[in-house]
Amino acid sequence: MSISVAIAGATGYAGGEILRLLLSHPAYLSGELTIGALTGASNAGARVGDIMPHLAPLADRRIEDTSADTLGGHDVVFLGLPHGHSAAIAEQLGDDVTIIDCGADFRLSDAAEWEHYYGSPHAGTWTYGIPELPNQREKIAAANRIAVPGCFPTGATIALFPSLASGLVEPDFAVVSITGTSGAGKKAAVPMLGSEVMGNLKAYNTAGRHRHTAEFVQNLRPFAEDLSVSFTPVLAPTSRGILTTATAPLADATVTTASAREAYAATFADEPFVQLLAEGIQPQTKSVVGSNLVQVQVEVDERAGRLLVTSAIDNLTKGTGGAAVQCMNLVLGQPETAGLPLAGVAP
Amino acid sequence: MSISVAIAGATGYAGGEILRLLLSHPAYLSGELTIGALTGASNAGARVGDIMPHLAPLADRRIEDTSADTLGGHDVVFLGLPHGHSAAIAEQLGDDVTIIDCGADFRLSDAAEWEHYYGSPHAGTWTYGIPELPNQREKIAAANRIAVPGCFPTGATIALFPSLASGLVEPDFAVVSITGTSGAGKKAAVPMLGSEVMGNLKAYNTAGRHRHTAEFVQNLRPFAEDLSVSFTPVLAPTSRGILTTATAPLADATVTTASAREAYAATFADEPFVQLLAEGIQPQTKSVVGSNLVQVQVEVDERAGRLLVTSAIDNLTKGTGGAAVQCMNLVLGQPETAGLPLAGVAP
Amino acid sequence: MSISVAIAGATGYAGGEILRLLLSHPAYLSGELTIGALTGASNAGARVGDIMPHLAPLADRRIEDTSADTLGGHDVVFLGLPHGHSAAIAEQLGDDVTIIDCGADFRLSDAAEWEHYYGSPHAGTWTYGIPELPNQREKIAAANRIAVPGCFPTGATIALFPSLASGLVEPDFAVVSITGTSGAGKKAAVPMLGSEVMGNLKAYNTAGRHRHTAEFVQNLRPFAEDLSVSFTPVLAPTSRGILTTATAPLADATVTTASAREAYAATFADEPFVQLLAEGIQPQTKSVVGSNLVQVQVEVDERAGRLLVTSAIDNLTKGTGGAAVQCMNLVLGQPETAGLPLAGVAP
Amino acid sequence: MSISVAIAGATGYAGGEILRLLLSHPAYLSGELTIGALTGASNAGARVGDIMPHLAPLADRRIEDTSADTLGGHDVVFLGLPHGHSAAIAEQLGDDVTIIDCGADFRLSDAAEWEHYYGSPHAGTWTYGIPELPNQREKIAAANRIAVPGCFPTGATIALFPSLASGLVEPDFAVVSITGTSGAGKKAAVPMLGSEVMGNLKAYNTAGRHRHTAEFVQNLRPFAEDLSVSFTPVLAPTSRGILTTATAPLADATVTTASAREAYAATFADEPFVQLLAEGIQPQTKSVVGSNLVQVQVEVDERAGRLLVTSAIDNLTKGTGGAAVQCMNLVLGQPETAGLPLAGVAP
Repeated sequence: MSISVAIAGATGYAGGEILRLLLSHPAYLSGELTIGALTGASNAGARVGDIMPHLAPLADRRIEDTSADTLGGHDVVFLGLPHGHSAAIAEQLGDDVTIIDCGADFRLSDAAEWEHYYGSPHAGTWTYGIPELPNQREKIAAANRIAVPGCFPTGATIALFPSLASGLVEPDFAVVSITGTSGAGKKAAVPMLGSEVMGNLKAYNTAGRHRHTAEFVQNLRPFAEDLSVSFTPVLAPTSRGILTTATAPLADATVTTASAREAYAATFADEPFVQLLAEGIQPQTKSVVGSNLVQVQVEVDERAGRLLVTSAIDNLTKGTGGAAVQCMNLVLGQPETAGLPLAGVAP
Repeated sequence: MSISVAIAGATGYAGGEILRLLLSHPAYLSGELTIGALTGASNAGARVGDIMPHLAPLADRRIEDTSADTLGGHDVVFLGLPHGHSAAIAEQLGDDVTIIDCGADFRLSDAAEWEHYYGSPHAGTWTYGIPELPNQREKIAAANRIAVPGCFPTGATIALFPSLASGLVEPDFAVVSITGTSGAGKKAAVPMLGSEVMGNLKAYNTAGRHRHTAEFVQNLRPFAEDLSVSFTPVLAPTSRGILTTATAPLADATVTTASAREAYAATFADEPFVQLLAEGIQPQTKSVVGSNLVQVQVEVDERAGRLLVTSAIDNLTKGTGGAAVQCMNLVLGQPETAGLPLAGVAP
Repeated sequence: MSISVAIAGATGYAGGEILRLLLSHPAYLSGELTIGALTGASNAGARVGDIMPHLAPLADRRIEDTSADTLGGHDVVFLGLPHGHSAAIAEQLGDDVTIIDCGADFRLSDAAEWEHYYGSPHAGTWTYGIPELPNQREKIAAANRIAVPGCFPTGATIALFPSLASGLVEPDFAVVSITGTSGAGKKAAVPMLGSEVMGNLKAYNTAGRHRHTAEFVQNLRPFAEDLSVSFTPVLAPTSRGILTTATAPLADATVTTASAREAYAATFADEPFVQLLAEGIQPQTKSVVGSNLVQVQVEVDERAGRLLVTSAIDNLTKGTGGAAVQCMNLVLGQPETAGLPLAGVAP
Repeated sequence: MSISVAIAGATGYAGGEILRLLLSHPAYLSGELTIGALTGASNAGARVGDIMPHLAPLADRRIEDTSADTLGGHDVVFLGLPHGHSAAIAEQLGDDVTIIDCGADFRLSDAAEWEHYYGSPHAGTWTYGIPELPNQREKIAAANRIAVPGCFPTGATIALFPSLASGLVEPDFAVVSITGTSGAGKKAAVPMLGSEVMGNLKAYNTAGRHRHTAEFVQNLRPFAEDLSVSFTPVLAPTSRGILTTATAPLADATVTTASAREAYAATFADEPFVQLLAEGIQPQTKSVVGSNLVQVQVEVDERAGRLLVTSAIDNLTKGTGGAAVQCMNLVLGQPETAGLPLAGVAP
């Protein structure tokens, strides 16, 4: 029996990435999974080939309106919409449809934090889509409403929770994440023009203003009540990729690079997408571009008395569309890695 | 029964790309195909993860010496070596091994042309690996020695042969191909440093000096005895991708964009990787990065009286490693598209 | 006595480039030249530092409305406006003000060509701002209305006119110009987003559609009645720079690289900004970024029977703002090179 | 009377940048300053135009051997050599020559730190070339031996010392500096190839290993005995520019963004090159490329209880060649800003 999937907001970068991955998914190639409605707002009626020319096999498909009519009747619906739009659609679709939301609406459990960062009423909380968090894989497999995490929290959470879970650091993180431009989405804006971003490096939404800060804190607080996170995102001249560097004071003087590596290796031993790199090798975004990998490194800076954790992800794959497909695989009982590349497109 | 493949020169960009593709190949995922020896020269003994950190599943494999010992006993051997090294290895391996050579040694059939451009004795001619050329697919399927074409000739040949075969133009081409830097290979050189190439545009090997010119001529001459090709390669600041623009005088005044499109559509009707874009849509390299696609556009410039043909490929995929795997699929009786993405990694 | 200059459309890329150059102009540094009104449309009222943070010395200046009031009373007014807006302002300012227009309105002398390419009535023709064309320097020095040429025609005209003037080629050019993104201006648009242009190569406005084609033809026709120009612009992932490659059939078999170089060297002997490179050295955009240089190379492709001419400019400097300042210098009797760098910002 | 300057290691990026700046220096344009010997090692004998084609006015000059013969007889000698080579040259040249060393040899005053980081005997200590440090400008003006600081310490020191001098923070810094590739110099190496660095983000020399860490500590320790600096450099895909982000715990709860800005504004009030940006505007490298500017921003992250300081410089200008010329200006009694652009080459 065939599984049918639809995508609302299919013409954005998240939607396009889900489609790219599905087109190589074994279940799609075998005919077990079919790509149903692709919907959009301003682009309704357009040819896919005119808007997303990289999706060659879908070139002659048309974008439809986003509505219960077009999205109904599918087994899985991915949402790639601006925040504030997911709740209404979810209600219309009913509980027998699995909804995987790439937007922010249902990520935060704390209503006050939501309102502080988004300035609108809290819509609720769905199952959080990081299978690599303790016990989370099972929850996702059993869910029919899944909130795909933000791109920054994905790489930072996976890289940092073991440092707290294993008692390596004091919970006082200085996090700097350098990101490509695609995280800003496919929206015309002068500061995101190629002429402005090429050859440029710039911090933005600094000093706690970035909305993803709340998600970091939510993800890490279970491991440390008294948590502090300083988060500085920096925009870099590349389309895809996030490199996160984070430091925190060592919990005590006995923590060494070797003991930290041991803790990390144990944590990630069975994770198909998380790769603790060999000692001396730093993560790089180019190694993970187009893949669902999270590359991680951890080491002790003895002079500074801090642990340094670094991680690299592709913000559109593991950071959005790949995580969405990974969650879909878990829900559908497909192999978790199906359709999700384990090798980056380098160089 | 399992198929075993080996790669000589595995740590170069061609070798790495073949490996990236094989890691998602259905035959590899099902266990039908195994990745055997990976060999190198200066890198022998090194961990794959230290040299090609994007190939996560192979991180703990070791690079071996390139020799008959290490390469022998495989069903298919890919060669990604500097020119001049393939003949000796081929002799040692014997005829029951399929050898797919990504280097230049066996591409040219004209010994004088070889010597003019390469300055060394001609080693011979193998079956030329562009399945999209008339009757070539069958020859490749039956071959045990295959010469993967150069990256520039691939995009230009596929884009241009129909213009001659259909009598649209006089055989007097002005070809400009703009390429990313990975075509220069993984060799340390000041002019290829990031500091030098970023923000830079520069023509090189101009005025007939580029070795691939001979391959263009060889591929197109069967369609036009009195052929002239002016070829100007330009280096652009991106890692992957070749955009070719080519013009030639119209054969006669009756050729229109519509008639040219009709001829091209007919030629490529059954080609899985060649996509004639809708009218008004130009090929772009970003649409094909990481994929085995060739995107093509053709139109008439009435004022100038010339046909304009443009094409985009990923020089490492369809331009090298993807073509190699496509040829392997044909030889092994695998589906031709197996393991070869039909969607680019965009944006 | 001080010279006062104003800029209408100061917040666009042309306006910003003129300001960057003026801030290092000897006449500005000595107090002889003052920077007066900076005007804009949507940005009126804004702080310069918020919009053009690279112009540190002007950070606290404010953008004013574009009007006869704000622009009046200056000696020189630069216009950096979308086409269609220059005529009205010019009328209001009167003849004692020198107006240097970076827009297209007054570049073309043929009203039919204007209407064909721009779809609006022809506004007239001003003195054309390429001092390097024969006898043009004197005309500019005596003018009070100057049309700065388009960025593509600047590099192509300077590179190509000697090939006709010296009888080296038949007037049948195949021109491919690869350009950075800043030529598209500072206007929000999805196809110009960093995410779309980085890693991408794409032809656009092909097959005679680009408006600058008319300007090429206008500039070169005085040297060859029966002129044909095929022009293909290509967008590349860099902010600044245009590399032009052009070929044409040799006029006769006696033309050699040496004779072509001799003709070019004689033509450019006294040009301060045009540099005919040594044999074997190709122009590159990085060598001219931020400078007013035009680097040129010329050679014969014997096999193809064509002359190859290549040139590199910075589209915002020699291609727009630098040409504007060069014209201002001529009008004001300043040294022609004053404030115009002769060295590029490399690497 | 004319001043004569020479450059040893003229073909490296530091040497090339000094030359670029000198070619627009008022003293050079007026004939007061002449560019004498340009020396190199492997490039001796080469044409400048073949190696540094962006320096058009010097294209026909030749690179000479680096020796006392070629460098002697100049008033100012700039050194752009690998570390370990400056002492011998300095001895040969004598005390009446002003030597401005862009290398590391004489930057550190602590011999043990030198040996720890460079693994060779300490050569000595010269006057440190950051005029923006308290009382340093006068020392530089009186010196005949000047050590130009490293590129990372320049931006970080200027941005951070006021936070300590004004008692805003505890001296426990987490510093992440994102740099372009030109900081690695003009040396062929696979990891610095364009194919490797474009589209890539990667930390390197992490956890206290980067040699510049010692320079940070040296510069900041006068303001805080018990200093800790965690330094993480990250390589980004651009040629020029360093963006530094640094956080430290607030000294006490009374520190606000307003009070921090006040302290910074007072510190930099008379600095010609340091620009404290308006509140809400973050530094960006594109704003300072090609200029000698240091753009700085400071703000309080209340939730995290940390001060965030960010700065942007061009690593080749203010980070090396511009600082060298600024020091030369001070020594020669030239205006400090002579020949040093105050506006960046943007976009």
